[in-house]
Amino acid sequence: MESSPPPKRTIFFVSDRTGITSETLGQSLLTQFDVEFDQVTLPFVDNPERAKKAIEQINLTAQESQLRPVIFSTVVQDDVRNLLKTANAAFFDFFDQFIAPLELELGVKSSHAIGRSHGVGDRRVYDVRINAMNYALSHDDGQTVRHYEKADVVVVGVSRTGKTPVSIYLALQYGIYAANYPLTEDDLMDGRLPKFLQPFRDKLFGLTIQPDRLQTIRQERRPNSRYSSLAQCQVEIMRAEALFRKEKIPCVNSTTMSIEEMATTILQETRLRRRTF
Amino acid sequence: MESSPPPKRTIFFVSDRTGITSETLGQSLLTQFDVEFDQVTLPFVDNPERAKKAIEQINLTAQESQLRPVIFSTVVQDDVRNLLKTANAAFFDFFDQFIAPLELELGVKSSHAIGRSHGVGDRRVYDVRINAMNYALSHDDGQTVRHYEKADVVVVGVSRTGKTPVSIYLALQYGIYAANYPLTEDDLMDGRLPKFLQPFRDKLFGLTIQPDRLQTIRQERRPNSRYSSLAQCQVEIMRAEALFRKEKIPCVNSTTMSIEEMATTILQETRLRRRTF
Repeated sequence: MESSPPPKRTIFFVSDRTGITSETLGQSLLTQFDVEFDQVTLPFVDNPERAKKAIEQINLTAQESQLRPVIFSTVVQDDVRNLLKTANAAFFDFFDQFIAPLELELGVKSSHAIGRSHGVGDRRVYDVRINAMNYALSHDDGQTVRHYEKADVVVVGVSRTGKTPVSIYLALQYGIYAANYPLTEDDLMDGRLPKFLQPFRDKLFGLTIQPDRLQTIRQERRPNSRYSSLAQCQVEIMRAEALFRKEKIPCVNSTTMSIEEMATTILQETRLRRRTF
Repeated sequence: MESSPPPKRTIFFVSDRTGITSETLGQSLLTQFDVEFDQVTLPFVDNPERAKKAIEQINLTAQESQLRPVIFSTVVQDDVRNLLKTANAAFFDFFDQFIAPLELELGVKSSHAIGRSHGVGDRRVYDVRINAMNYALSHDDGQTVRHYEKADVVVVGVSRTGKTPVSIYLALQYGIYAANYPLTEDDLMDGRLPKFLQPFRDKLFGLTIQPDRLQTIRQERRPNSRYSSLAQCQVEIMRAEALFRKEKIPCVNSTTMSIEEMATTILQETRLRRRTF
């Protein structure tokens, strides 16, 4: 007889700000367990009244599911956090665990005040990110090749390899100026870089992908077309990769990568300086 | 006599994946300290060889700066983590701290294997995010008002209130279909919603901002123009806010908010279901 699967718990991500830090941390832990969870984020819990409302919701879940929920908390204020600890739940506290040993190590007292919960809240960083994103948007998909001298990186690849999301993510997360240019069939038949790209060769970064995965993606866009045929995907990829090799353009295979992983890989391989620390 | 400022430490965010989780954790803690740090991310440290390279770099920093660096680690593999602990640094380990108590609470052993470090790595979620982002891009800045029936939310506001970044962030982080439409002077003079928006009134969400902050932002775009004059900013904002009140459109003031905070606020107030858990 097989053992029955473990029952489904509810995970609450509780935060005095957006909840993004709490989600990020909690989910990285939860992926270590081969268990399914219900997940609920409770953002902006930044005063005792909101804490009491959160506790009500958590206790109701505990009662209805007959299972003790789990709380991942990044709440900074002591009074709010102490209230949350009284909920009928297992309480995992990112703040308490690290802040005391960190104070000891740094020899400085912490403020215990709500701060920028993910380090991207202030105006300078806001402006940096917005400017980078505007750059990415106006230089998306080769719509203009002017101002490439301002680019930190020019992402190249055939259609649907992930150039747009990775360019935008580089802008939002790292303040990187990322243009992207789609290699057309003409470019690929020529077997060399378009002339206007040649002065920027050192800024180029290639994206490639497995042909069958590319076909799946293209199929969703234009079903049963030449564009989405496996043969077409294969030949485009083959020629693009040959071009990257010939021109010594660094490249990454995006087949099994998340947008974050592609962006981080580009950042690391190009040794670009991010603008958002 | 004032005490001298504390010396500048180097913080290393070490990860077997992108480093984003480690940065998120570390930075949310560091903002609690009124101290300046140097920050370095070491991603993809996923085998002993790379761990040794990381340790070399960390030890060199310790030696050159005469200050013990701080490591924030999210490394999952025991052998890599145990190596990193031998570096000449204060070691803050996210994984060790939480995984054992979580195993106890859940009654399940964890895999101790590198997983999706921020819960957005798998293909379904990749496709959800890309489709949402393509929707946001093709419905950015009112460029088409078709397919608004597919939108989860239509962000409205005057030019430069943050509609584009918040729409794209909603797509990337939450898989939300967010269109955005810029309220023009004609719309504002009329004092009512454009006709084609009226069927979608329940999907509208307004962004507003303080006029002086808006002026600063517009000034960067078109210096010393009517568009970027304080008077123009004031009158546009006043009319937009009046419209939101009259039409009972929920809205948020983005003046002091990060992109993340705007997005999370919209998600919470609209009670939209995210697609990325």
